[in-house]
Amino acid sequence: MPQSIRIPVDQMEQEFHRVLIKFGFDVRKAERCAHIFAVNSLDGVYSHGVNRFARFIQSVKDGHIKPNAEPEKKHSSGALEQWDGGFGPGPLNATFCTERAIELSAEYGIGCVAIGRTNHWMRAGYYGWKAAKAGFVLIAWTNTNANMPAWGALDCHLGNNPIVLAVPYKSEAIVLDAAMSQFAYGTLEVYRLSGRELPLAGGYDARGNLTTDPSAILETERVLPMGYWKGSGMALLLDILATILSGGLSTKQITDRGSEHGLSQVFIAADISSLGNHHVIPKTINDIIQDYRSSRPASDATEILYPGERVLRSRKENSESGIPLNQSVWEEILSL
Amino acid sequence: MPQSIRIPVDQMEQEFHRVLIKFGFDVRKAERCAHIFAVNSLDGVYSHGVNRFARFIQSVKDGHIKPNAEPEKKHSSGALEQWDGGFGPGPLNATFCTERAIELSAEYGIGCVAIGRTNHWMRAGYYGWKAAKAGFVLIAWTNTNANMPAWGALDCHLGNNPIVLAVPYKSEAIVLDAAMSQFAYGTLEVYRLSGRELPLAGGYDARGNLTTDPSAILETERVLPMGYWKGSGMALLLDILATILSGGLSTKQITDRGSEHGLSQVFIAADISSLGNHHVIPKTINDIIQDYRSSRPASDATEILYPGERVLRSRKENSESGIPLNQSVWEEILSL
Repeated sequence: MPQSIRIPVDQMEQEFHRVLIKFGFDVRKAERCAHIFAVNSLDGVYSHGVNRFARFIQSVKDGHIKPNAEPEKKHSSGALEQWDGGFGPGPLNATFCTERAIELSAEYGIGCVAIGRTNHWMRAGYYGWKAAKAGFVLIAWTNTNANMPAWGALDCHLGNNPIVLAVPYKSEAIVLDAAMSQFAYGTLEVYRLSGRELPLAGGYDARGNLTTDPSAILETERVLPMGYWKGSGMALLLDILATILSGGLSTKQITDRGSEHGLSQVFIAADISSLGNHHVIPKTINDIIQDYRSSRPASDATEILYPGERVLRSRKENSESGIPLNQSVWEEILSL
Repeated sequence: MPQSIRIPVDQMEQEFHRVLIKFGFDVRKAERCAHIFAVNSLDGVYSHGVNRFARFIQSVKDGHIKPNAEPEKKHSSGALEQWDGGFGPGPLNATFCTERAIELSAEYGIGCVAIGRTNHWMRAGYYGWKAAKAGFVLIAWTNTNANMPAWGALDCHLGNNPIVLAVPYKSEAIVLDAAMSQFAYGTLEVYRLSGRELPLAGGYDARGNLTTDPSAILETERVLPMGYWKGSGMALLLDILATILSGGLSTKQITDRGSEHGLSQVFIAADISSLGNHHVIPKTINDIIQDYRSSRPASDATEILYPGERVLRSRKENSESGIPLNQSVWEEILSL
């Protein structure tokens, strides 16, 4: 087992910042980008935080991520806008699109920003938390390169195309962040790194059998779509929607480029403060969550958590004790 | 086995029309409603077509569906509108909302209509086909009464809250119509009626074991969420979104009413003809589908179909040969 250490979030963010500046990010962009990687780590999504940072820098070195590219508006249809991401940093472009969708929704009730030629946004949930904590609803998704076979297929022609659905809840948020594969690649990597089996079959091994071994699935890339044909169909539709709404690249076109860059994404925000029932919405959401929590658990050990609840726990624990990571991951970042 | 017959779609539609008039629908509403039930049957979705018609009429008799109620606008935030369904017929209200979301999208690029106090829309896909064949993108979902346990729970506190995602494709459409349970109740009923086992575990039996027996699952109502925790979380978010955006009733509130009526629904349309890339969208979608179809099937018997492709086959076969149904189902309708 690699040695696990804990690094305080501020120290981690400073280190990200140092590296980003070194690789050409201007000060403001380095700050925002370092902050997103730090928050993702603090929230317990290490696979799209600290564990992914070195690979992000590699994409900058490879020229796939242009550190200081700014999104440019290509077309407006009123509450629906198309932007070009200019191959800029995915987290910065996605933050921009979230803010822009919020602005549009404040003007029109609902707003949609679709962006092409952007890059991996790291963690879908980040944008959901951001919008929901500002009091808005967010529905956003991205395409990816081909990393999942269609239901019934052997080879990958679909992305796992994560989606986020977020609503405000008390001073925090309810945030569903879900890839269309049963397990995200990041999750498979976390299980592999910790030497654990998956709790349920997550894909196929080299002999075509369903397996709970994350390494075997990472080898074949035959991950299971969530809900079999349902996640498969949803992944296809999310790719079509992201591609046509943004005027950007499809999963197929991204895959043909050889490395995953130039993604297409959609951000839909709704301004619930503009609604006739806005004053009762907090109570409405609370009532739904109270009822959900009253579910009878299948065993004494089972907790019925709402999407995002685990994030709050990780955030609290990691704020107090530092962000856990493998020594080697931290050393690699220090050496950048 | 009950005797299976085939009825021509026109004859079936006329019969629906006769019954609807008898139960108080005005002529125009009876026409539209009969047409929707007939099309759903023609398209092979019998569970939300002919097989559900008698139950629909029972809800009219019970006073849960008001045949001639018209939706009324409660609030407008520009491209986002809230409507009250007045407990009118779900298929008519949902058709209205689809058309209204399309109108809003033609004005603003994107449009959202949320409706409360409506009724079961029968088949989500109907509205997707309608919007997509008119050249628009549609994303729409409904809540339901509590009919699915949260992941890890024994009792039902979630609806299976079907969603539809639709885009135009050639002269037809690509339409994903998916409930958040691995199998829709309608599907479980179809398997039960035909005496077949499910192809994969779809829920739990009375002893708490996963099972492929549709009758056992219909008895416990412990259906599996699609993708386990993913479908469970998504169902929760779709209910919250439908409830707060419409200002209508939540799954919990609907369930408390004792029978399933007064649902909340959301319809989001996007006008892709307004986009900068509109002239290449048909080719873009076609390219994605061509690539998807080039997937290597896991066996010689496997077909890689896109969502909605099977509908086209049912439509063709049923147009030629009539709509298949059990004799007893037809006799019940004739006796209404």
